[in-house]
Amino acid sequence: MSLRKSYSFQIHPQDVDFQFRVTIAAFANILLTTAQLNADDNGFGLRRLNEMECSWVLSRFAIEMKRFPEQYEKISVETWVEEVGRANTTRNFCIRDEQNEIIANASSLWVFFDMQTRRAKDLITLDGIHEFANGEPGLIEKPIRLGPVENGVDYDGFKVKYSDIDINGHVNSVRYIQWISDCFSLDCYRKCAVSRFEINYMNEMMFDDFVEIVGQELIKGDYRFEIRKDDKVACRVRVLF
Amino acid sequence: MSLRKSYSFQIHPQDVDFQFRVTIAAFANILLTTAQLNADDNGFGLRRLNEMECSWVLSRFAIEMKRFPEQYEKISVETWVEEVGRANTTRNFCIRDEQNEIIANASSLWVFFDMQTRRAKDLITLDGIHEFANGEPGLIEKPIRLGPVENGVDYDGFKVKYSDIDINGHVNSVRYIQWISDCFSLDCYRKCAVSRFEINYMNEMMFDDFVEIVGQELIKGDYRFEIRKDDKVACRVRVLF
Repeated sequence: MSLRKSYSFQIHPQDVDFQFRVTIAAFANILLTTAQLNADDNGFGLRRLNEMECSWVLSRFAIEMKRFPEQYEKISVETWVEEVGRANTTRNFCIRDEQNEIIANASSLWVFFDMQTRRAKDLITLDGIHEFANGEPGLIEKPIRLGPVENGVDYDGFKVKYSDIDINGHVNSVRYIQWISDCFSLDCYRKCAVSRFEINYMNEMMFDDFVEIVGQELIKGDYRFEIRKDDKVACRVRVLF
Repeated sequence: MSLRKSYSFQIHPQDVDFQFRVTIAAFANILLTTAQLNADDNGFGLRRLNEMECSWVLSRFAIEMKRFPEQYEKISVETWVEEVGRANTTRNFCIRDEQNEIIANASSLWVFFDMQTRRAKDLITLDGIHEFANGEPGLIEKPIRLGPVENGVDYDGFKVKYSDIDINGHVNSVRYIQWISDCFSLDCYRKCAVSRFEINYMNEMMFDDFVEIVGQELIKGDYRFEIRKDDKVACRVRVLF
């Protein structure tokens, strides 16, 4: 049993940018929806975990794009759990178009989170989940631990608003991806396309927090960002064009 | 022939706010998608108009909410063209839940726009469209021409970014609605719900324009806003709680 499963989606008008291509934020949203659906199908979805006063927290996420699907295109997202360790679990994705060509791959790392203690919980206590790990690697390098941004310049600064907040009372995971994608001009998107987007989620942001985005182009086309609140880092991002 | 047609939607996780309720922006997006689908079904959709180097431009839009649908709820959006004048056309919406209860109504005013001259075009030149006007009024007051905000206070200021821009190269219509909904705190949304949201679109905004939002509470629970760029007004909004 390969334990891979596919889910179908269509790219909607609100998912695309000025060039009719899916935005990296909308694409990430489709993958996170897939993760949620597949975890539900496996019996370890958020609704089940919430009953145990636990949750899944996304820790790291990497997406590599070969081609950005356009408005109205249909895509299929295949997903599977590669491994379940003590501290976290790895879920991979392979995304194909209607011609069955691979257009993107992704890999994500999730922490099993105890909402009462506000700490990670040993996955050994989650009975039966290990049966869903098939050991099959994804087609891209796993998201790694990104280093700090040392000599970054200020890209943006603003307050967290109503529409940024999700049902957990924190800034939605996809919003950070949108904020970083907004650090680039239309001209940049006309000339280049994102080939790898990688994010480490570190600290949650709340309503009215001040968001500070700093970044640097490490080498040509290889950008590193930090989203900061006060003296903490909310997330670190690498964007490769 | 009543010329009314219904379209089905589900409220997705990315459509809801911290209280699991659809945001007014996500709800408006569903209605505008419905308008697009129905115009296509009538043979006067954007794809057909674009072939004539014309387009539909949303001029005024009013939504009244009786109940905000929640995550995973299924809704049906009934829509029809009430009238087709020389300068514009009125499209109404009636939104029901799975119990067939009316949860919202909306009314919109559209201009037939010539993309070459950048001006409104007489609808008399659009052969056959008048047959789709059924003369049936909506269940709410039509969106009116909103007056200027005289003694407004500054609510927010920021630049238009990549993710705000749609396939026409302008700020997406729904984005203005989101920006205004972001003028209120979580606490405000905890205590009250929007009962009527009304917007006049006046001037398009482009990438890198500076967005200035001014507003005033005219009488308790009745807010007026203007979104300004330089010396122009991009749109005027009334929010009634």
